[in-house]
Amino acid sequence: MSEPGSDASRRGRRRPVVPSAPAHPRAERYRQLRMPYTPWRVMSEDRVEALHRAALGILEVEGVRVLSSAARARYRAAGALVDEGSGLVRLDRGLVAECLAQAPRTFTLHSRNPARHVALDNTAVSFGPVSGAPNVMDLEGGRRAGTLVDYANGVRLCQAFDVMHVLGAFTEPQDVPVQVRQLEMVHAQLTLSDKIPHVYSRGSAQIADCFEQIRIAYGLSPEQFRDTPCTYTIINTNSPRVLDAPMADGIVDFALAGQVQMITPFTLAGAMAPVTIAGALTLAHAETLAGLTLAQIARPGAPVVYGSFTSNVDMKSGSPAFGTPEYVKAQIGAGQMARHVGLPWRSSNATASNSPDAQCAYESQMSLWGALVGGANFVLHAAGWLESGLSASYEKFILDIEQLQMLAEVMQPLGVTDDDFGLDAISEAGPAGHFFGTQHTMARYRDAFYAPIVSDWRNYGAWSGDGARSATERAAGVWRATLDSFEAPALDPAVAEALEAFRRRRSEEGGAPPAG
Amino acid sequence: MSEPGSDASRRGRRRPVVPSAPAHPRAERYRQLRMPYTPWRVMSEDRVEALHRAALGILEVEGVRVLSSAARARYRAAGALVDEGSGLVRLDRGLVAECLAQAPRTFTLHSRNPARHVALDNTAVSFGPVSGAPNVMDLEGGRRAGTLVDYANGVRLCQAFDVMHVLGAFTEPQDVPVQVRQLEMVHAQLTLSDKIPHVYSRGSAQIADCFEQIRIAYGLSPEQFRDTPCTYTIINTNSPRVLDAPMADGIVDFALAGQVQMITPFTLAGAMAPVTIAGALTLAHAETLAGLTLAQIARPGAPVVYGSFTSNVDMKSGSPAFGTPEYVKAQIGAGQMARHVGLPWRSSNATASNSPDAQCAYESQMSLWGALVGGANFVLHAAGWLESGLSASYEKFILDIEQLQMLAEVMQPLGVTDDDFGLDAISEAGPAGHFFGTQHTMARYRDAFYAPIVSDWRNYGAWSGDGARSATERAAGVWRATLDSFEAPALDPAVAEALEAFRRRRSEEGGAPPAG
Repeated sequence: MSEPGSDASRRGRRRPVVPSAPAHPRAERYRQLRMPYTPWRVMSEDRVEALHRAALGILEVEGVRVLSSAARARYRAAGALVDEGSGLVRLDRGLVAECLAQAPRTFTLHSRNPARHVALDNTAVSFGPVSGAPNVMDLEGGRRAGTLVDYANGVRLCQAFDVMHVLGAFTEPQDVPVQVRQLEMVHAQLTLSDKIPHVYSRGSAQIADCFEQIRIAYGLSPEQFRDTPCTYTIINTNSPRVLDAPMADGIVDFALAGQVQMITPFTLAGAMAPVTIAGALTLAHAETLAGLTLAQIARPGAPVVYGSFTSNVDMKSGSPAFGTPEYVKAQIGAGQMARHVGLPWRSSNATASNSPDAQCAYESQMSLWGALVGGANFVLHAAGWLESGLSASYEKFILDIEQLQMLAEVMQPLGVTDDDFGLDAISEAGPAGHFFGTQHTMARYRDAFYAPIVSDWRNYGAWSGDGARSATERAAGVWRATLDSFEAPALDPAVAEALEAFRRRRSEEGGAPPAG
Repeated sequence: MSEPGSDASRRGRRRPVVPSAPAHPRAERYRQLRMPYTPWRVMSEDRVEALHRAALGILEVEGVRVLSSAARARYRAAGALVDEGSGLVRLDRGLVAECLAQAPRTFTLHSRNPARHVALDNTAVSFGPVSGAPNVMDLEGGRRAGTLVDYANGVRLCQAFDVMHVLGAFTEPQDVPVQVRQLEMVHAQLTLSDKIPHVYSRGSAQIADCFEQIRIAYGLSPEQFRDTPCTYTIINTNSPRVLDAPMADGIVDFALAGQVQMITPFTLAGAMAPVTIAGALTLAHAETLAGLTLAQIARPGAPVVYGSFTSNVDMKSGSPAFGTPEYVKAQIGAGQMARHVGLPWRSSNATASNSPDAQCAYESQMSLWGALVGGANFVLHAAGWLESGLSASYEKFILDIEQLQMLAEVMQPLGVTDDDFGLDAISEAGPAGHFFGTQHTMARYRDAFYAPIVSDWRNYGAWSGDGARSATERAAGVWRATLDSFEAPALDPAVAEALEAFRRRRSEEGGAPPAG
């Protein structure tokens, strides 16, 4: 005998229990996740320190090219060696160490709803959606350029699931002119959701507008805003070893405003980074430290997240790959480096698949588990990323939500009291008995197990008789139903009016052109 | 900016490197996997010991019903309390402890090809295929009853991939009469593959035939065979607390023959086990210890693997579920229990999905990662299991092989020497440069990264222009090509003739009826 046989025989005598809704929604447990397991390691502690020193050597000897003269001036004033001709900035290890010591190890992203605050530290775990995809995809509408409607739908979908902790840039609303696009995106976030809003770093003028919108929505004074992290941005270095002007200026703007920046080199081993994962991590570590140093120079104590996005390319075609074994090992290594310098660590849920199929699911699972075993504290692109990030997929968003909720459950502690051992039930059921009707089961069954939103556990006959729909097809039903039943959280009418007035005024003034 | 944008901009300047085959096949690295990471824990060590004691209490007070009178006689002779009326066998904890102390902590499954030996201990990791599915599925042929052709195809597919370490019972060849079915299955394994054969425990007469076939193929004397583990069986207890006759007799037969048994209670929390995962683990632990005790009574030192297969049911329908969060936590807990008693631990890659879609992939990934973080030493059903084990899927077999190879790569050590940090390459590439042409890359690119067999990393245009095939459709091409190019490993003609003669003679004699 082997298990399938046992299973088949069991199927014959299964007995349904009266269905009943759980007393409390499990999803609320997903709001502030904590990692209960010990992260894995791909390097010994002495090699972690060696990699750190190698990165410091790069910053000291080779330097980083910084394309913003204002940022170079800040570096120079702090004692860095700056070559204005080449734009190269060289940092000695003393300066970097001093800045690292100033960076906070733990901070909180504030929501306008205190139940939605997000902790950033070395045991917290939070998720954000796919961000910045130029296209969207869904089964019915196919692949197309993202619009403001899609963007707003992304905000709604994020708001609808407790396991999605912050908002993001789902898709680029290409039907909105660039100078007012950011106004519209932030307005949508603040009016459709009470979760943490995301802001792009596309120049100081745009950032200032976004900060003002958020300040109005939160009802903070300018001084309070400066001391209350309530939004975040992604700073991508331009690997290898370039910090372009919008990014460098964004680092300064976010630091001065006391808002959160996640400094994330995008290092593809074999292309813009060494072909070895250790080399790609070394380059990324150097670049992150360069950015962190600028942030701390601008404002000591500025909240910075250690971002990493290291994967490999297909060496035959140059195509980027994600969710690969190399990607997982890079995640584990990056997590070690983040903890070594004491910063919260940001990772990603990525796949190169072009459709929400089995490849998409296993590459995403590899990415998510890599984040988990690596001890990630924030996972961006956690739901909806498809096609190497060039599309936001509605169906994949839902497939990912299912998987994130499953991982959130994996993070809940297992009950192991004497009562959990169920000795009375084992005695009560007897040999060859069943447990459906035992007291132990009756007291617990309503909320015993995770209830999926996409997974179909019916037998083959029931499933095929009901249309034999794939998980992706079922996910399409879920996102549509979620949008259909969506209700925006309450917002003080006076605040809504002030937000609307600001948007109208700034739009009439022409908004602000993006930098870079 | 955020990463998808960076990615898009990078895509424009990627440069292909001349393609070249790796110097050595990476797959050979997958033959003897070792777990380099520290397993996770869901229980403190004192709760592990408490669960162990709770299980010992069940065996002492409640007992296990054993349906074989021969097995009961062995228990009684060893000092157990046996009630012949009810069949209940009660074991005191001293007897169990004594038997546990006799069970070997490490042993080797021998192949007729020494390169295919399989280590079983607490750091080894090995994979076996889906076993015992009554049906098979493929995209073209649909779902149908398994045949001997399908079974042989399963053996060929296992032989073809180094990451599949042992053979199994892929599908039940329902076109072969039951009394000669086992003869045909073992004959196919021994002639089409040089990997470890699997034998069912369906009565002593069948087992004796199978052992004889294997002994002939390996060229061992009866005495040598008895001291050389070279085949394995799965012992499923009939939870709760029943050991049926074929299983109990199989435990004794395999112990006496010195062959490997994996004692695996199939405990679905809420159905045949307590609704709590800790309770289901407690029941399973007791049942495994009951079986192990019988094995050691029969022959002290008999090689036993601690099997676990604990999941949950949907409490609304009673349907079994796999790859759930509860399944993962049960895996982690079972791994702790196996290490507590010092035995190698067997887990499974399971899913309740009815088709090889995204659900199938994410549930399988959950199962595989649960095995990995739990520290599994042997994973059965690792490739091809679909529909709660009621079907062996050709396409899923290939999708799983891809995932197993990826996990095998995750288990390979990461290079973190100074040379791996790539400082020369980082200097050589310069700011905004690329690494394709650096010396560091040129010396390594051929074998730098895992090369997938199913995953498609081309861009959307290339992929859609080439038919927009899903991963599952691509997997269909892989299994067909694998079977088309299959060549059986060499087998001494004299051995082949002896095997054929045995098969013919026993078939003419009517084979042996299955027990149970």
